[in-house]
Amino acid sequence: MSIEARLHELGLALPAVAKPVAAYVPAVQSGSHIFVSGQLPFLDGQLLSIGRVPSRVSVEAAQQAARQCVLNGLAAVGEQLGGDWKRLVRVVRIGVFVQSDDDFFQQSQVANGASELLQAILGDAGRHARAAVGVNALPMNTPVEVEFLFEVRP
Amino acid sequence: MSIEARLHELGLALPAVAKPVAAYVPAVQSGSHIFVSGQLPFLDGQLLSIGRVPSRVSVEAAQQAARQCVLNGLAAVGEQLGGDWKRLVRVVRIGVFVQSDDDFFQQSQVANGASELLQAILGDAGRHARAAVGVNALPMNTPVEVEFLFEVRP
Amino acid sequence: MSIEARLHELGLALPAVAKPVAAYVPAVQSGSHIFVSGQLPFLDGQLLSIGRVPSRVSVEAAQQAARQCVLNGLAAVGEQLGGDWKRLVRVVRIGVFVQSDDDFFQQSQVANGASELLQAILGDAGRHARAAVGVNALPMNTPVEVEFLFEVRP
Repeated sequence: MSIEARLHELGLALPAVAKPVAAYVPAVQSGSHIFVSGQLPFLDGQLLSIGRVPSRVSVEAAQQAARQCVLNGLAAVGEQLGGDWKRLVRVVRIGVFVQSDDDFFQQSQVANGASELLQAILGDAGRHARAAVGVNALPMNTPVEVEFLFEVRP
Repeated sequence: MSIEARLHELGLALPAVAKPVAAYVPAVQSGSHIFVSGQLPFLDGQLLSIGRVPSRVSVEAAQQAARQCVLNGLAAVGEQLGGDWKRLVRVVRIGVFVQSDDDFFQQSQVANGASELLQAILGDAGRHARAAVGVNALPMNTPVEVEFLFEVRP
Repeated sequence: MSIEARLHELGLALPAVAKPVAAYVPAVQSGSHIFVSGQLPFLDGQLLSIGRVPSRVSVEAAQQAARQCVLNGLAAVGEQLGGDWKRLVRVVRIGVFVQSDDDFFQQSQVANGASELLQAILGDAGRHARAAVGVNALPMNTPVEVEFLFEVRP
């Protein structure tokens, strides 16, 4: 099944690619890899949630934010591919940063929001290596930031 | 000398590969690289130590935890290689995250536990680029998490 | 224009490559990529600034530190290239870690110090993917650490 069809079946749609907040680009292709910049959970120009997990943002809301980061990351790689999803081979790695209270240690649960959605959309091609960590602060007070490495056909 | 012989000489053995805590895989090969997910210092199903460095976990204990992450990372890449260590070219990069007290700035010393063991086991092939940082929280309250990038013969 | 000429025009010069503080190397080439270890803002053997942003180090000073990390990173890749800058294809990705107060969320602004200098020196080849995050502690109490991935001609 095509990525578009799978997204439709899941009731999801890819957003327009957000302009980077700064002096860098959303995605860079190098050989058979596309590196996608750290994505924030923007939806229609607004962050889905704000603040630390779990005192300000619940684990469930942070998982939802991680899912939005995935949609934004897929949008970035899709634009880089010129919409030709057949060139996508697989997700190789994701890095997940969770803005965490000092006594919160369930970063894996939050990151599962991203990992499970990648597999729901991409199937086996969505299986990836992962590093998930907590941090005390993130840009724009986002609860979650996710970066991506994809393998593609050049 | 083979990796197995070198491990034996050092009195070390690779563990069974831990099942990921979540919706991802321990290692992904892409071309001539294997990306290994962030490893925690599990030994026989238990974390070697718990908490921040150095208030709860000493620098020495954190170095030991970093070494255990290396053994677990090597186990993951060994499984991906089907045990054929001759395919391993080198360690390219490691990322080391140390759960740190706000006034602890010796993340390099902790990370040396990982770096030095990689060189002890792999010799020149164990020399790598590295990023070592402190964070306020890590999954399961682990003091250290280490991710790895290996170059292999495809 | 050559990199050397561009640096000269900007009034900049690359430092000698700092010896790693520890058991790793400044840069590793693997195929057509060079991975540069996390760089600290050393100038003539001293960190440009010390402490968290912004309570101890202003945003402007942290941007300056990020620029110094870029010069040190370019020095490391230049050494790896044996000074043959024509082999440099582009910057692919940078990872920026900002030692942040708990209520500081402008990591992007700090990271722009690095991103903008890369583009000033390298032009289009300096455009990159990026992950910028806050952390509570960094080695040697540096306010900023930056790691780099470059694409090169093998």
